[in-house]
Amino acid sequence: MQKKKPECLVSVVMGSDSDLSIMEEATKALGEFGVSHELYLTSAHRTPERTTAFTKAAAKRGVKIIIVGAGAAAHLAGVIAAQTLLPVIAVPINATSLQGLDALLAMVQMPGGIPVGTMAIGKAGAKNAALLAIRILALEDEALQKKLAAYVKKMADDVERKHENLKLK
Amino acid sequence: MQKKKPECLVSVVMGSDSDLSIMEEATKALGEFGVSHELYLTSAHRTPERTTAFTKAAAKRGVKIIIVGAGAAAHLAGVIAAQTLLPVIAVPINATSLQGLDALLAMVQMPGGIPVGTMAIGKAGAKNAALLAIRILALEDEALQKKLAAYVKKMADDVERKHENLKLK
Amino acid sequence: MQKKKPECLVSVVMGSDSDLSIMEEATKALGEFGVSHELYLTSAHRTPERTTAFTKAAAKRGVKIIIVGAGAAAHLAGVIAAQTLLPVIAVPINATSLQGLDALLAMVQMPGGIPVGTMAIGKAGAKNAALLAIRILALEDEALQKKLAAYVKKMADDVERKHENLKLK
Amino acid sequence: MQKKKPECLVSVVMGSDSDLSIMEEATKALGEFGVSHELYLTSAHRTPERTTAFTKAAAKRGVKIIIVGAGAAAHLAGVIAAQTLLPVIAVPINATSLQGLDALLAMVQMPGGIPVGTMAIGKAGAKNAALLAIRILALEDEALQKKLAAYVKKMADDVERKHENLKLK
Amino acid sequence: MQKKKPECLVSVVMGSDSDLSIMEEATKALGEFGVSHELYLTSAHRTPERTTAFTKAAAKRGVKIIIVGAGAAAHLAGVIAAQTLLPVIAVPINATSLQGLDALLAMVQMPGGIPVGTMAIGKAGAKNAALLAIRILALEDEALQKKLAAYVKKMADDVERKHENLKLK
Amino acid sequence: MQKKKPECLVSVVMGSDSDLSIMEEATKALGEFGVSHELYLTSAHRTPERTTAFTKAAAKRGVKIIIVGAGAAAHLAGVIAAQTLLPVIAVPINATSLQGLDALLAMVQMPGGIPVGTMAIGKAGAKNAALLAIRILALEDEALQKKLAAYVKKMADDVERKHENLKLK
Amino acid sequence: MQKKKPECLVSVVMGSDSDLSIMEEATKALGEFGVSHELYLTSAHRTPERTTAFTKAAAKRGVKIIIVGAGAAAHLAGVIAAQTLLPVIAVPINATSLQGLDALLAMVQMPGGIPVGTMAIGKAGAKNAALLAIRILALEDEALQKKLAAYVKKMADDVERKHENLKLK
Amino acid sequence: MQKKKPECLVSVVMGSDSDLSIMEEATKALGEFGVSHELYLTSAHRTPERTTAFTKAAAKRGVKIIIVGAGAAAHLAGVIAAQTLLPVIAVPINATSLQGLDALLAMVQMPGGIPVGTMAIGKAGAKNAALLAIRILALEDEALQKKLAAYVKKMADDVERKHENLKLK
Repeated sequence: MQKKKPECLVSVVMGSDSDLSIMEEATKALGEFGVSHELYLTSAHRTPERTTAFTKAAAKRGVKIIIVGAGAAAHLAGVIAAQTLLPVIAVPINATSLQGLDALLAMVQMPGGIPVGTMAIGKAGAKNAALLAIRILALEDEALQKKLAAYVKKMADDVERKHENLKLK
Repeated sequence: MQKKKPECLVSVVMGSDSDLSIMEEATKALGEFGVSHELYLTSAHRTPERTTAFTKAAAKRGVKIIIVGAGAAAHLAGVIAAQTLLPVIAVPINATSLQGLDALLAMVQMPGGIPVGTMAIGKAGAKNAALLAIRILALEDEALQKKLAAYVKKMADDVERKHENLKLK
Repeated sequence: MQKKKPECLVSVVMGSDSDLSIMEEATKALGEFGVSHELYLTSAHRTPERTTAFTKAAAKRGVKIIIVGAGAAAHLAGVIAAQTLLPVIAVPINATSLQGLDALLAMVQMPGGIPVGTMAIGKAGAKNAALLAIRILALEDEALQKKLAAYVKKMADDVERKHENLKLK
Repeated sequence: MQKKKPECLVSVVMGSDSDLSIMEEATKALGEFGVSHELYLTSAHRTPERTTAFTKAAAKRGVKIIIVGAGAAAHLAGVIAAQTLLPVIAVPINATSLQGLDALLAMVQMPGGIPVGTMAIGKAGAKNAALLAIRILALEDEALQKKLAAYVKKMADDVERKHENLKLK
Repeated sequence: MQKKKPECLVSVVMGSDSDLSIMEEATKALGEFGVSHELYLTSAHRTPERTTAFTKAAAKRGVKIIIVGAGAAAHLAGVIAAQTLLPVIAVPINATSLQGLDALLAMVQMPGGIPVGTMAIGKAGAKNAALLAIRILALEDEALQKKLAAYVKKMADDVERKHENLKLK
Repeated sequence: MQKKKPECLVSVVMGSDSDLSIMEEATKALGEFGVSHELYLTSAHRTPERTTAFTKAAAKRGVKIIIVGAGAAAHLAGVIAAQTLLPVIAVPINATSLQGLDALLAMVQMPGGIPVGTMAIGKAGAKNAALLAIRILALEDEALQKKLAAYVKKMADDVERKHENLKLK
Repeated sequence: MQKKKPECLVSVVMGSDSDLSIMEEATKALGEFGVSHELYLTSAHRTPERTTAFTKAAAKRGVKIIIVGAGAAAHLAGVIAAQTLLPVIAVPINATSLQGLDALLAMVQMPGGIPVGTMAIGKAGAKNAALLAIRILALEDEALQKKLAAYVKKMADDVERKHENLKLK
Repeated sequence: MQKKKPECLVSVVMGSDSDLSIMEEATKALGEFGVSHELYLTSAHRTPERTTAFTKAAAKRGVKIIIVGAGAAAHLAGVIAAQTLLPVIAVPINATSLQGLDALLAMVQMPGGIPVGTMAIGKAGAKNAALLAIRILALEDEALQKKLAAYVKKMADDVERKHENLKLK
């Protein structure tokens, strides 16, 4: 299905530019792994046609995975998942007084038939969305697998180093 | 905008036929007030194109108000409201272990720009969705206003009658 | 029912003057659409008679839709809806440590018989309350429908423009 | 304020006859203590005028305390408290899929100025509403105080007796 | 039961001196109504014997009503209610990351037999606790009833005055 | 502190005999490990003096650990922990419409100074309360440690056996 | 990385055999798509070594995606994700009185670094976990993509057929 | 099982160095009681092997009790409890927008078989975790029991002193 030289493998979509500081955790992680990606702004509610056009074109452009961040009654991930066969990963964003619980439930409680893999609310979720996308891409990319292994090792080393730092205090 | 002799004034839409027993509270109330209506099954996730086609055609067919019932990550009302200028009224349905809280938040927490008037979870909400639609239609229909006044009076009389019954026990 | 030259078509009611910054989102939106409106302060609990008097007079004064903002145990919308046949739209306000969940449930969970169309907690809800009122008024007002269509188009354009801005960063 | 020979000292009000099985826990307890009481059905939403009339007449009829049971968006206790100077005790009733959390928050989160003493959701709350009313009345009634003391003693004895029964098993 | 010239009619108890700023809403209101009161610090957990001694002496000292503020796993109101026959009014305090929901449930969900009248979380609740105590005392005190009526009238006047101020803006 | 030949090492206390079916999970587990124990019924609210007497005597009778099960506004564990220096383990019981969330928060959110180790709501929590008590006792009892090791091994074996059974289906 | 002729592409793991009726929704869907899979029983808590052994061997055995169902404090998905580089998809199961909210939060709120894609609570989630796995596998498998497209089409057709059935009633 | 001269009796473990300010409440309390302890950094997710190694060595090193603080999907306490027979005490940390509710449920809702004694969210919980550990150690250490008794007396004295201070204001 994928064209040669795809523009990007992972599309990071968000419903509002106020979500940018959260979703940059995803683009930053993808960048660190050298995975081509794009940042796309479209709203399920304010730009339904744009969302449909984006979604229908994604696979044709070579996108393999779509990461979607949204807050409040966060419909964007479900709406995109309904119009593509690509894997969709959702990041609930804390954008209302309900602290992201609304976005979490609006994303994770998808009815049977249209899957959306939901991550934690906020920055941790955005970072993990990228890491899940990378794990998926690494299934067919040994170089990426090695980077993942190194990343996991570095996380473990960081814990040990921080432990040593604690003792010096 | 409305055509002559509209098929129906109120369209009652639901995302799954398992929502029927709830949404019939709405059609029953509309029927009692003599308001023309239809029952329409379409899913934001399983039939996005059908939902778009239905929504875009609704105003042209003379529909004035759309009532939407859905459960779980209930996106249908927001998705419809994003594609029409008609008033949209939402009924959250208790369809998961979270007892309708998921559907409620997924409907009521709409971001600014696309309004959805949300009712109570379940049958009370479906009935009230119809009554809100009737209040809207009654703004331009004195006969309907009189029926509403009679309905409200009957509700009050019922309370008094039941009070008397209590005393007889 | 409406008199000639009504004072206002939409009454924006709130239970406390501390709700003003939220409810001004509603009056601002109504103003932008050129819909005549008023801001009214009355409390279900502190001024029950004033609330009743206001509510009973509203339709006679030509008001067509009542928007109600309230926080905490937010009874005002239900109390007003019980004393008028006009459509009532509720805006839950985050006024306690429970972050608006109390106001949301106290508004949206109305029992069958007395409908209240509830919007999101806070500013997004206040703005959408105005937009729902405008959608209702637009059913009989083609000029307003055109403004709504332009508003929706502008929202979509804003998303596209912001998307372009993102790319320039 | 109180008339001679009041019809009843405690009025037990409920918003729906479906609340009867819960609120009978209150009337049963009042009966056991020999406190005169009545059961009254009125709805904040379906019979606002009846509710006002009842409330305004209560003190004149010699009622000293009003117990109010309601479910869903339970406005009745607040609405009554706003129209009387008598102490009002509220019993949230589990009448929706949200298990009484809606009624609890709609009752207990009253804004400053209009007090409502809220009890537990359901039968325990109805029973305790009666017991709180009795504690209030007992402030000026030594015979009632003795009955309360005996009641408390009996509760303690029951625990001891049940403890002994456990050991026999 | 009451002695002549009681030290105070209402005892305002709190579990921690960090609750002071909340509970002063109660003492301030009692002071405004000229109701004698005291502020008492005792903890269900840190000073159980002190709590028992205070509670058992309260009625003998002429105290008629006990108001209790506490946060977290707020046991103090229930523990006091279990050791007195006086009416106990509880004020949940937002003292943890759960925003007072823990204190609310720990106070309001009392099992049948030991009543605790629970108010809203925080300052509104503390103020209303005082007002409920005053309503109870006013049952036998016409002067206090008049003050209550004046207080209620002033609240209503304030709403009207604030309404006028809104229009001047 | 402990006497020779204590009556029992672990006291399993509950606030109501309706909690029996839950708390028997604790006594059953203690029995299987051969740990001496007793079942004790006392209520924080209905029998405060009995609770104090029991608690103060516990250590003297040789009890080493107190397990407490309670529902609703579950104060019993905190009240006991406030009157003993023994470790207290709490089991929240689902006894109201709030499904044990009330008991959980009323137990686990203890303020600093008085520790209560809280387990899961219901039967799993009661069983684990016994197992935590056994882990504590096993610190000084090698035979008990061996039984614990065998118990853990048996749990693991059960998983493997059930896995094999799955495959046979 | 994958060996020739892998035993299975998707491993469906669950923490307890009581989760079987839920997780069979996943195996059933995988079976319908002809995707090789296995059902594996292991517990994060009762069989930590078995879980580690399973997880470390999975990629070597050719497993590409691990689906994990668990209830209560559902640690299994996170524990597995921490020990593999394969994509992990989690299904929260309603196994306690908290209706799956505990499992949902214990799965979805993973800290940054270890991604777990979480689905809805219960059967819808299990089915969607399989569908997400299939979408991932379909990235490199055109035949599977076609099956997915047919599946999506069939879902849409079912909605239309059910809509027609509604009209016949 | 314990060696002579153990490095420490209580190990205070945390999943992230950002938890330090919370968990220092535990080490501070242990220090005040003269209980030997250590602070250990290890993550269930980022360093599973380190966690296993630490846990398996703990008892051999003479550690008697393990206190575990973690936030978000807080698996660390359960993972440790699954690999040791020592008592494990958990401290949920408020590390996400859900205010510690996620960590609380992920810790306290452990399935039957693997006990974790859970404390309050945050600093109060960390302090109480230390106090519960001290109560356990005091079962076999009379000097520690005396310190506990003095600590409890000091807490009570502080309440009385603060009460006197209140009166001076």
